[in-house]
Parts: sequence; structure tokens; C-alpha cells
Amino acid sequence: MEFDTITAISTPMGEGAIAIVRLSGSEAISIADQIFRSPGNKNLSSQVSHTIHYGHLIEPESGEVVEEVMLSLMKGPKTFTREDVVEINCHGGIITVNRVLQLVLRHGARLAEPGEFTKRAFLNGRIDLSQAEAVMDLIRAKTDRAMNVALGQMDGKLSRLIASLRQALLETLAQVEVNIDYPEYDDVEEMTLPMIIEKSSWVKQEIEGLLRTSSQGKILREGLSTVIIGRPNVGKSSLLNSLVQENKAIVTDVAGTTRDIIEEYVNVRGVPLKLVDTAGIRETEDIVERIGVERSRQVLKQADLILLVLNHSDELTPEDVRLFEAIEGMDFIVVINKTDLEKKIDSQHVEELAGNRKIVTTSLLQEEGVDQLEEAIASLFFEGSLESGDLTYVSNARHIALLHQAKQTIEDAIDAAHAAVPIDMIQIDVTRTWEILGEITGDTVEESLIDQLFSQFCLGK
Amino acid sequence: MEFDTITAISTPMGEGAIAIVRLSGSEAISIADQIFRSPGNKNLSSQVSHTIHYGHLIEPESGEVVEEVMLSLMKGPKTFTREDVVEINCHGGIITVNRVLQLVLRHGARLAEPGEFTKRAFLNGRIDLSQAEAVMDLIRAKTDRAMNVALGQMDGKLSRLIASLRQALLETLAQVEVNIDYPEYDDVEEMTLPMIIEKSSWVKQEIEGLLRTSSQGKILREGLSTVIIGRPNVGKSSLLNSLVQENKAIVTDVAGTTRDIIEEYVNVRGVPLKLVDTAGIRETEDIVERIGVERSRQVLKQADLILLVLNHSDELTPEDVRLFEAIEGMDFIVVINKTDLEKKIDSQHVEELAGNRKIVTTSLLQEEGVDQLEEAIASLFFEGSLESGDLTYVSNARHIALLHQAKQTIEDAIDAAHAAVPIDMIQIDVTRTWEILGEITGDTVEESLIDQLFSQFCLGK
Repeated sequence: MEFDTITAISTPMGEGAIAIVRLSGSEAISIADQIFRSPGNKNLSSQVSHTIHYGHLIEPESGEVVEEVMLSLMKGPKTFTREDVVEINCHGGIITVNRVLQLVLRHGARLAEPGEFTKRAFLNGRIDLSQAEAVMDLIRAKTDRAMNVALGQMDGKLSRLIASLRQALLETLAQVEVNIDYPEYDDVEEMTLPMIIEKSSWVKQEIEGLLRTSSQGKILREGLSTVIIGRPNVGKSSLLNSLVQENKAIVTDVAGTTRDIIEEYVNVRGVPLKLVDTAGIRETEDIVERIGVERSRQVLKQADLILLVLNHSDELTPEDVRLFEAIEGMDFIVVINKTDLEKKIDSQHVEELAGNRKIVTTSLLQEEGVDQLEEAIASLFFEGSLESGDLTYVSNARHIALLHQAKQTIEDAIDAAHAAVPIDMIQIDVTRTWEILGEITGDTVEESLIDQLFSQFCLGK
Repeated sequence: MEFDTITAISTPMGEGAIAIVRLSGSEAISIADQIFRSPGNKNLSSQVSHTIHYGHLIEPESGEVVEEVMLSLMKGPKTFTREDVVEINCHGGIITVNRVLQLVLRHGARLAEPGEFTKRAFLNGRIDLSQAEAVMDLIRAKTDRAMNVALGQMDGKLSRLIASLRQALLETLAQVEVNIDYPEYDDVEEMTLPMIIEKSSWVKQEIEGLLRTSSQGKILREGLSTVIIGRPNVGKSSLLNSLVQENKAIVTDVAGTTRDIIEEYVNVRGVPLKLVDTAGIRETEDIVERIGVERSRQVLKQADLILLVLNHSDELTPEDVRLFEAIEGMDFIVVINKTDLEKKIDSQHVEELAGNRKIVTTSLLQEEGVDQLEEAIASLFFEGSLESGDLTYVSNARHIALLHQAKQTIEDAIDAAHAAVPIDMIQIDVTRTWEILGEITGDTVEESLIDQLFSQFCLGK
């Protein structure tokens, strides 16, 4: 397909050594030729692909020098977008890179929408939708493990598995079709109900296998939403600081205008922990009180993991018991802190309240017990299984939802086959499953959905 | 010169489409060869310079894929550092780029110090010290004008002027030397005192010319430190917001840990305004009261420009008068705000207090008068002269200090010549001037100073 020529700043904004303004499209090279002067007055169009050229960007009207640059010339189709791509590698800095961008825009390129480069790679058939989504996951990866999952998906691991499932369904459908349309062809193997059941059951099994990886995959991708609760002065703030300090904080999300810190990520043995409302904990030492009962219940409800902190040197209070009640049925770990002080807590009562949940004792003051807590967190969510890097993880909420739908429709097909429903009815469910799986790789996806998906990308990708 | 191979992340940290890990040094290509696999198993060492190669980074021991990359191969000496340079262009994202960096470090590269790439360009003779410093100025440029100054300097404009002054001094010295050592050679023109005075005066004049540009150059480079003062509720916060909103804020400096905002830059008609203590103004609407009398005086003392805001609908108070007293002798502009309300202020009294300073009336509520204020700011500091882009600006504090010293020593030489002091005494002053000027371009500079200068650069440059 041929599109207009787009451009964007493809490196993060900020003061850095190098910034890149990228162009893609049929006019990319001719636009560059207008504004680029090399010492030997090279004509870029006549240069070999995948070469680098030193020179200056100039205002062609006035001859004024805008920047000293290295220009990377890549002619399609062997490029990220399969189109002609020019990357202008300029000195970093906010003003410099913006001025280069403006120059390019004034000479015929259009500002790219977020994700538009990757969208073109998809529309031009270089990658499928799940691979495109993996590109974004890679950029946002919070841990090495999450990065590996994204890399695998980008490499087409999930795509190939989905393709094989769709192929099996398509073959089934084709044969059913032949049987229906040409009942007289008896040299064609007849697609009997037991055969449909066999094929469909295999597809269902594979889908279930993928779904089993999804909770871990989702945690790898989005982080384990973690809330620390406990009465005032039990050491919530110390626990937060220990986790942040011992494990390099990965990302601090800062909301645009208010500049309040809302979340911090830490990498606990490969598990990205998203510590929720850390500002609240740091400031008031009491999230539950601060945000009010109703909102605190909501925060709790959205949490994947709760760390309930108790005071070793104090008896259990009715408030502690209420906290246990509030998190009943959820994943939590009990942290009994302040073991450096005299014991007053009733261990047996704590064990009763905790049920089968893990209990860890710590003295955060003396930096004891944090290791055990981290061990407990890691084993709770990644009981060994993650070590096998070969698994294809499903981590994307869109993919998970589609797999659940596909599981439902293929089960419907199997049930219908068992009930000996007319075969063209079963066909509908199988076709629907084939379509739903196709939405994962983008083979059967709506254009509006594509637009929406790519708009979540960052600018310049 | 040959050095070990260094590496660093050369793009700003953050989530972006593209990140670059740069290597420079004699091992750059062989390190890349160990960890890079292209589809055709290319050997990078045997590839042509200035070419781009698609492939994957792998852990050579395990074969595990680390990233999908584009690799730019540039063989010295036609590179930024004059050494072999490899740029690994990978998917953006904090984890991905760090993992690539770690891989490179494990295979023989050393983490570069801040500015070390540019330092090598200097040490390998590609650029001189003032050009290297311009690279950093370019990255930090706050406005187009500042960028143009840096570009000119990077291009060697200042270097060439300094070189011509040093050449003149050197010729004078050489001739004096000949006269002293070989008084019998009467075919050599004798360097008489009037001739020394003539040459030295020309050098002095050129230095003074450069110094005349320095105050504007410094403002262009560092921004015009601006403080808004006034009684509570006169509209300081509105004025700040108008300036920030009407003019795209350039940079917001956020101090690392406290996350308080200390400074904001806005570009007012090419003048980079550094608005000091904007957090204070936004939060309390009263910088003077908030930071205490002593500290507020210090803030005022360091300001290049003060905007004193008065209330049009209120009579002048003793507090207003005290503010006028506090900024006596400084560059300030009076802003009479709230012209939408009934006038109560005594204009004549304001004019008396303001002396020859400009007075602008505004209604920030109705968005009136901000244009006139901006005009006043621009004309105060850049009365036309900046429009001539041909001037060589001196903007760097180090250069300015050296020029002041050089001016002093050449004046000493001229004075000595007038006083008919023995010529070998005058020689000392001329030599010293020649040396001081050489420090600007790095010809006569100490190694420790070089280290210190480059350490102020950003990482990866």
C-alpha cells in the first residue's frame, strides 16, 4: 500500500546526546533531499540503501544551517514500515530536535499519529497485529521477563500458534463444505461429527493452555498491583521504602499536571510490583484512613496482592481483625513487623485469621525478613513455571478476552456436535471461532479497532 | 590517539520509539560482531563504513535473543569521535535499552563518562574545546537564537577568531625574538614599540568586541533569570500562567528527589526567560513572604529581570514602595494589573518610583496587555542587535572570564610599551595573552580542566 509521508520525533523528549526524527513514506527521501546538504553535495535518491550520510540540514530558501546531522537512508521494502525510511540523527536537546521536525513538516511530511509507523508495518504486512502490540509491550516492559515475553510475541510465537489453530479450523470447515456441497464425491474424506469433535477439542485444549499463562502474562506486562495496609505506625512506610530501595525502582509514574506520585514499580525477583498510592503511604502512613472507607475498598478490590502489616510488639486489635475481614478471599501476605521489640502479638490468632496465607516476620528497622517476604511474593505468583522460557505467554488484555470468547464458541461447537445438531449449525460456531482468533493477529479485525489500538502507542513508533 | 572502547545510552531515558546505545573505540566493531547476528550472518568488520545492518543482539553463550536492532557501522576517522563507532538502534524502553547496554558492557566495552564521546572528538583533534562546549550548549539551548549561537560556535566561528588573534600575537612575539637574538640581522624588520602597541591594540579591540556580546550571549545560553514580585493578590500567579501559556514552556527543571519545581523556562520572543521559584508563586502566591526576607533578597540579587506587579484598583501601599526600594538599581518592569477594575492607583507616583523603567498596564483576567509586556522584555535585552546573525557571540562563562583576563594582560603589554619598558618584559604579557586565549580553544589548557569541563556533559554525548 502507498501512503503519504509521515514524520515524528522517535526518541524520548529530553536533553540527550542524540535525537532522531524519522520519516516514512514515498516522499521521505525527496523531502530529505530538499533540506540536506552533504560536503560532496550527494543526491540521496541515488545513494545505496542502508547507508549513513554526514551533512547539514539547511533552510533551502535562505541557505541557513539548521543542524549538523547524520542521516540514515533506508529504502523500502526492507525497513520497519516497508516504506522508504529516513532517520535524521541530530544533536539531542528539545529545541534542536523540534526545529528539525518543523523543517521536515514544512517540506511536505505530515506529523505522524501515535503508533503510526508500527501501524504501517502492520498495514503493509510486515508484522501482524499481535506482533505490533508486542512492540509496544517491549517499550513498556518493566522487567527482563516481561521483555522476553514481548520479544517472543514480536518474533511471531503467538502469531504462529494462533495461525496453526486457525488453519486446523479452516481445514475442518473446508471439508464440511465439500461434504455439504458435493455429497456425491466419495473420494473426499467425509467430515464426520466425531472428527469435528476431535479437531475442535484439540483447538479448545490449546486455547486453554494459552489462557493458563494469561494471569502470569498479565502480571508480567502490567505489574502486580500491590497495596500495603495496616494500622498506623506498624511500619507500612518502612516496608515500602525497603521494597523500593532493595529493588531498583523501575518506573515512577507521575501524572501530568498535579505531579502527585501515584504508582511506583519495583522489580521483586522478576515480578514487577506496582505499588499503589505510594504518595499516600509516604505522606500519611495510612492509606485506608486517608482515602476513606469506600475508596479504600475499591483500591483493595483492584489489587492483585495485599501486604497486611501487623505489629509484633502489640496485641491484635479489633482494627487488625477488620482489615483481615476486608481482604478475605484475596491474595495477601501477612507481615508481622517489629520483631526487634518484645513480642505481644498472639501468633496463633494471626495464623487462624491468615488461613492458608503466608506469614512473614520482619524487623524492618534491623533490615531483617525482607528477603523472606520477597521470596513469598515471587513464589506466590511464579511457582517455578516462569523459568521455562519456552512457554508462549498471553499477556495482553485484548488477547485474553478474545481467547475466552474463542473458548466459548469452540465449546459450543463441541456441545452441538455431541448433541448431533445439523452440521451446518456447527459450522457457524467453528467459523466464529476462526474469526475471533483472527482478531488476535489482525486478520479479521475491524479498521476502527486498528485505529484505536495504535493510538495507544507512543509518538514516533 | 588510541583509547579503550566506551559505550553509553545516547538517547534520553524514557519510553520512546527508538533508543541508541553507542560504542566508540578500536574494539567497537569486534564487540558488536560478538553479539550481533544478521540474517545472512554478516561479519561487521568486513562491511563497508557508514552502512546500516538489520539483525538481532544475542547472548553469544546461550544464543538467547536480547533485542531486534538496526546497527549503524561507522569506521574511523570519519566519525564523531574519529574512532570506530557503532550505534545500536533498538526499540525504546527503559528495560530494553538497559539490557542492551549491559550486554555490550559484558563483552568488553567500558561505560563512558559524561561527555566522553565529545572529549574524544576533542582529544583526537576533530574539534577544539570551544566547539566541544558548543555541542553541549546546543543540547541545552532554550531558544532558536541560543541554538544559532551554539551552531555558529560549533562550526568554529569563535575558534577562527581566537586563532587569528593568537596568530597576530605569535607573529609579534616571533619578531621580537628575532630582534633580540639576532640584533645583527638588519634585513629583518625590527619590532619597534609602536608596532607592538599597534598589534596589541588591535587584539584588545577584538577582545572588547567579543566581550560586548557576552551579556546577551550569556542570557541566550542560560536564560534571563526572572522573578515576579508584588503584594498578595495583585495577580502574580496569573502573570506567571499567562507567560507560560502564551509561550510554550521550554523546560521544567525538576530537582531529583524532592520533585519540587524550581524553574520554568519560557521563550518570550527569542528571549529565554527562566522564571524562578514558580512553585512558590503557584502555591502561596507570595514569593517574598514565603521564602523570608533574607532569602528573598538573595533571589532578587541574582535576578536579571524583575517583574513588579501592582494593583490598578488599589492605592499604592507602603509595602509597594518598599518593593520598589528593594529592587532599586536593578532591571525591572512595572506591571499594573487589573485594569478591568476601577482605577485607584496613583499613576504619577508609580512613574516617579519607576524612574526610567518601563510601565505596562494589563488586565490578565481579560488577557490584555501581555503582548506589550513581552515587547518590553524583548526590547529591554535585545534592542535590535540580535537580528544580525553574523555576530560571533560569546556565551560561555568560562570563555568570558578568559577574555576578561586576556584583555587585562594585553592592556598591561600596551601600558608597558607606552612606558618604554624593556621589550623582553613586554614579551611576557603578550605571551600570557596568547596562552589565555589558547585556553578558550583548548590549545594551552590543563588536563584536569579538560576532565572537569567534559564531566558537565550529559551521559552518552
